[in-house]
Formats: sequence, structure tokens, C-alpha cells
Amino acid sequence: MSELRWDPLKLHWVIIATDRGRRPRDFHLEPESHEMTSCPFCYGNEDKTPGEIFAIRPNGPPNSPNWQVRVIPNKYPVLRIEGSLGSRGYGPYDVMNGIGAHEVIVETPDHGRGLADLTPAEITGVLMAYRSRYLDLRRDMRFRYMVLFKNHGQRAGATLSHAHSQLIAVPLIPPVAATELKTCREFFSAKERCFFCDMTLFELASGERVVKEFANFVILTPYASCFPFEVRLYPKRHSHDFALMNDSELGELAVALKDMLCRLKGVLNDPPFNFILHTAPPCHKRLGKPEYWGSIEYDYHWHIELVPRLTQIAGFEWGTGFYINPTSPEDAAAFLRDAEI
Amino acid sequence: MSELRWDPLKLHWVIIATDRGRRPRDFHLEPESHEMTSCPFCYGNEDKTPGEIFAIRPNGPPNSPNWQVRVIPNKYPVLRIEGSLGSRGYGPYDVMNGIGAHEVIVETPDHGRGLADLTPAEITGVLMAYRSRYLDLRRDMRFRYMVLFKNHGQRAGATLSHAHSQLIAVPLIPPVAATELKTCREFFSAKERCFFCDMTLFELASGERVVKEFANFVILTPYASCFPFEVRLYPKRHSHDFALMNDSELGELAVALKDMLCRLKGVLNDPPFNFILHTAPPCHKRLGKPEYWGSIEYDYHWHIELVPRLTQIAGFEWGTGFYINPTSPEDAAAFLRDAEI
Repeated sequence: MSELRWDPLKLHWVIIATDRGRRPRDFHLEPESHEMTSCPFCYGNEDKTPGEIFAIRPNGPPNSPNWQVRVIPNKYPVLRIEGSLGSRGYGPYDVMNGIGAHEVIVETPDHGRGLADLTPAEITGVLMAYRSRYLDLRRDMRFRYMVLFKNHGQRAGATLSHAHSQLIAVPLIPPVAATELKTCREFFSAKERCFFCDMTLFELASGERVVKEFANFVILTPYASCFPFEVRLYPKRHSHDFALMNDSELGELAVALKDMLCRLKGVLNDPPFNFILHTAPPCHKRLGKPEYWGSIEYDYHWHIELVPRLTQIAGFEWGTGFYINPTSPEDAAAFLRDAEI
Repeated sequence: MSELRWDPLKLHWVIIATDRGRRPRDFHLEPESHEMTSCPFCYGNEDKTPGEIFAIRPNGPPNSPNWQVRVIPNKYPVLRIEGSLGSRGYGPYDVMNGIGAHEVIVETPDHGRGLADLTPAEITGVLMAYRSRYLDLRRDMRFRYMVLFKNHGQRAGATLSHAHSQLIAVPLIPPVAATELKTCREFFSAKERCFFCDMTLFELASGERVVKEFANFVILTPYASCFPFEVRLYPKRHSHDFALMNDSELGELAVALKDMLCRLKGVLNDPPFNFILHTAPPCHKRLGKPEYWGSIEYDYHWHIELVPRLTQIAGFEWGTGFYINPTSPEDAAAFLRDAEI
């Protein structure tokens, strides 16, 4: 019998179709090619990208080789930094100008290495670049949220195979974040506890969906996973804002993130995936009102969500907003726990 | 400059990235093969499917050949009809048994013909099958919504190429429908008008997004389209419930639906697509409360939504719930208006 499961954070239902019971091998895809034909992200090709915004490089001037991590503006940005919002009505609709920022974090100068292949020290550098860009972009009062995400593999939407992530600053709180923030706010108002802290305690006690526990982080498969082998990485201690992590905390996070990526790579044969960093929005004041009016430092809890792209989204999902997952999160956690890394 | 557009019905933003300005030819895909190797939906293979629930056939017993449209239970249902819901809590979550119905509407006995290739009279038969199944399934008090959808092409999630649609009855109102119903209810409460009727009047007056107008139906591209060449088919006269359409109205709808499918097929080279019929939920009383407490016959308006599957959903869309559309709905409408059909 399949189950309908409710996600109390994201406010959605999912059908866990256990009858289908699909196992990792059912999802193995043909490997994608990683041919290097004049990749603009490679060492030595720094002049083929727009000028860098941030870099980790032991020495040398900006836009020279010898870097470890490099942040550049996206050459084809979906939102542009120049201009004003121009928010206006149009008949029954609303419209704003496409104002924002769209940056690319190149994670390594080596074309052949993915994020999972980097050392924890190198991954720490990538996380430091994320933090630095968050702290800089939130000074711009037009930006209400920063979306940091990674598309790995063509099937997950990556147009260049060289390891990179992207950061898009947007002039509004996106629906997924708005729902999470609202749920957390209402939970805290009622109980004076963080929803995520409660949920993590429950999951650690149950253990069924725990993939790996570290001193300060835990990798879980969500109870109402929408997709096979969906995983999340939570800090165990309450913390609303990724950008407030210190270097030592980022070092620990790098170890946990590498562990998560290596388990997925091993079990699913280097699957295409998307990951998204969920963190608190900047708490600007705007038009005299605080941007987010709750006590966000108490009620929100940052985390990383990762979705391997193994199944298709079809008419049912699009038409309903609920999902059919052919692999139970408990089975997925068991496979990932047993992964050799 | 790209635009951020707000959909006041579905409550989402979309980035219309006009800088990218992608045209139909940019989306042409390799045609998929339609080889016929013992297809269970073909004429003469009636014994290879579960016994039929409904059929249009001039004469002959059930499950014999000589049919025009045939409805059968899905051999691999995501939800099953037997049992009780067993709604219960589990720690911070909720869970129900996977109760529902999952049926397949085989649209024609001919393997090589798609829905767009059928005659208006044949399409009317398909729509009559939809109506008949809606009216039957809504008598089951456990089902709170019926999702009728079609996946055309492998890339849109179709596992069999023979023309078919699916109907899934679910024991809850899905999030997408819940949002639409709530928006319409609130709009009607404030204005005593139907949101869809208002919006359609605005669109007909503007004309920019009108693909084709019929006496009683209109084909539009939505102002805040999430995907390139997204189209909707609305009845012009207010009507909340598809299942209340009479035979003559279904005949007119068949002409409009064929027109819409042929335009897409012509402009986009037979693209993969999903369509979903959005209609009012059954108004059961349950636990002494009406299922839907508004005056749904006044405030909701049934329609068909169609999404060609031309672009990928990547990390940004998944992480935010808002979408990047590289083709403006105005351009899409112009291409579809000029289609030779």
C-alpha cells in the first residue's frame, strides 16, 4: 500500500508509491561526457569571462591564474543589477523590472573534478566564497532574497560541465522560502521552539531516515521526500543564517557536504542533481517596515536541500503540486548509509 | 530588460527573460519513435489490459474490439481503490493510506494517431469519456478531487506512445487546486465577480495574448506563463464544472481543443506536452461540513492548461518556486496565431 505523506514545513503532500519500490540501480543513467573544448571556467582562460567579483588566490592580481575559487558575473544573467524595480499594475496582474544579480561561483580551476572530488579544505573555500557573496549582496536594499544553488549534470540543467554553483539575488521573497518562513514563524509563535530543531530531534531519535550524523551536522532523507534519494543537510545547533558561520564551522560543513555528495555519487553512479541553500533573508528595513517582521533569529534554521534528478516531472505533478516518489525515504537512507565512500 | 510578472490566480512570480527571446525553432527536438511492439492499448489487444470501466463502442460486448474510446484501470496504479484512508499523525508529520483511483482513457484504437490527429467528433467522444468518469468517481465520498491529465511524448512522462490520458482521484484537494479555489473565493467575496471572467474580458480587450477566439471558447497564453508556449483554453461563459457540459458544448470544445493542439504541433514540431483539466472539486458533505464552503458555482471557472515540455526545471526553479521563461507569452501567442493548421 502506498502512503500519502504531509510535509508540515513546505505544506505539501507526496505519494510514497512503495509498491513500485525502485532501487538505486533502476536509476543509473548513461554517464555524460565531460569533454574540455575551450571551457571559460578553466585555469588560464580567465580572460574569457567577465571580470571577477571575488576570488581565493594565494597571490597575483585579479583575473590572473593561480586561483582556487572564483566568482564572476553570469555572462547571460536572468536578472540585471542596473536600474530600479518600477513595480506597477497591469490590468489584473502585477509586473516589475527584472532587477537582481546573477553570479557564478567556479568551484575549482580543474575541469575534471566535481565538488565531491575536492578536498574538505577546497570545499571550505567554496563555502567561504558563498558566505562572502551573501554578506556583500545583502547590503543592496533592492534584494530581498539570495538563491544559492548548484546544477550538476546536463539533466539537472547545467549548461557547462565545469564544477560551478550560482547565486541569484531577487527583489522578492520566493514562494518556497515564503512558505518555510511563514510555517516557522507560526510554529514559533505557538510553541516558542524552532520547527527544524524539533523535527531534527524527532529524526535523530527515530534514526530511520538518518544517513550520517556528525558532531554538529546531520544528513537526513526527508519524511515527505518528493523525489527518490532526496537528502537534506541540517546544522544540529539552531542557526538561522548561513552567512554567520565562522571558518571552523564552514570547515565542519565541508566535511559533511563532501560525505553527502560522495554517498550519492557512489550509490547512484554520479547522478545529475540540484542543491539549494535555504537561509534567512536579509532583514532590511524598507518603506519603514522591517522586511521580515518576526524574530527570525529564533524561528528559522538554515539548511541544504539536494534533489537527484532521476525521475521526470509529468502532468500529474504539474497539475496538482503533489508528487509521486517511487522510492521510500527509509529505503533511500538505508542505501546511502551503507554506501562505501 | 526582463520582467518579473505576478500571477494573481496561482500566486507566483515568473521571470520573463525577454533578453533570451527564444523562438520556436530553438525548441525543436528530435522526433520520438512510435514503434508498435505489442501495444496493450491497440485494437485487438483488449485482453492485455484490466477489464474496461467505460467504452464508446457502436456494438459488441465489453472488452471486445470495435471501440472508439476505452477507459481501463491503470495496471500500475499510484493509488488504490480498496481500503480506508486511515489518516493519522506520526511525530511532526501526517500520513494517510494511498487510497484513490487511477484510470487510463485510451483515446483511439489506432496506434499511429495522436489526439491532435483525431476528428472533432472523435475528440468529442474522448471528452464524453472524461465527463462520464468524473460523474461516476465523484460519487465516492473518499475522493476530494479528480486530476485529469495527458502526458504526450516520453519527455513529458508518457511511458506508452499510444494516445491516452489519465484520471487520478485523490483523497485531498491538491495544492495547485487549493490555491486557485482560495483565490477565486476571496476575489468573489470582495467583488461578487468571477476572477476568470474578469481576466478573460481583459485579455480579449487587449488581444496581445489571444491565440484564437471561438464563439464560446478562447485560447490564450497566460500573462505570467512559467514555460515557453504555455497555453490555456477557457470557456467564455461562466461555468465552474466541466462535468456539467452538455454534448453540444463538448462538441464545440473538441473543435477548440483540436485547434490548440494542431497549432502547437505545427509551430513546435509535435512537442512533448502535459495538459491538465482544472475543474471544481465534488461538493461532498463530509463530517457534517461541506467539502468546499464557498459558492463554488459562482466563483470558480473550469479550464484546460497545457504546458509544452521544452525547457528543463533546474535548481533555481526547484529552490524558489518561481520560473524563468525565455519566450514572452506575447511572442508565443503571435507564433501560434500565425500557425498554418
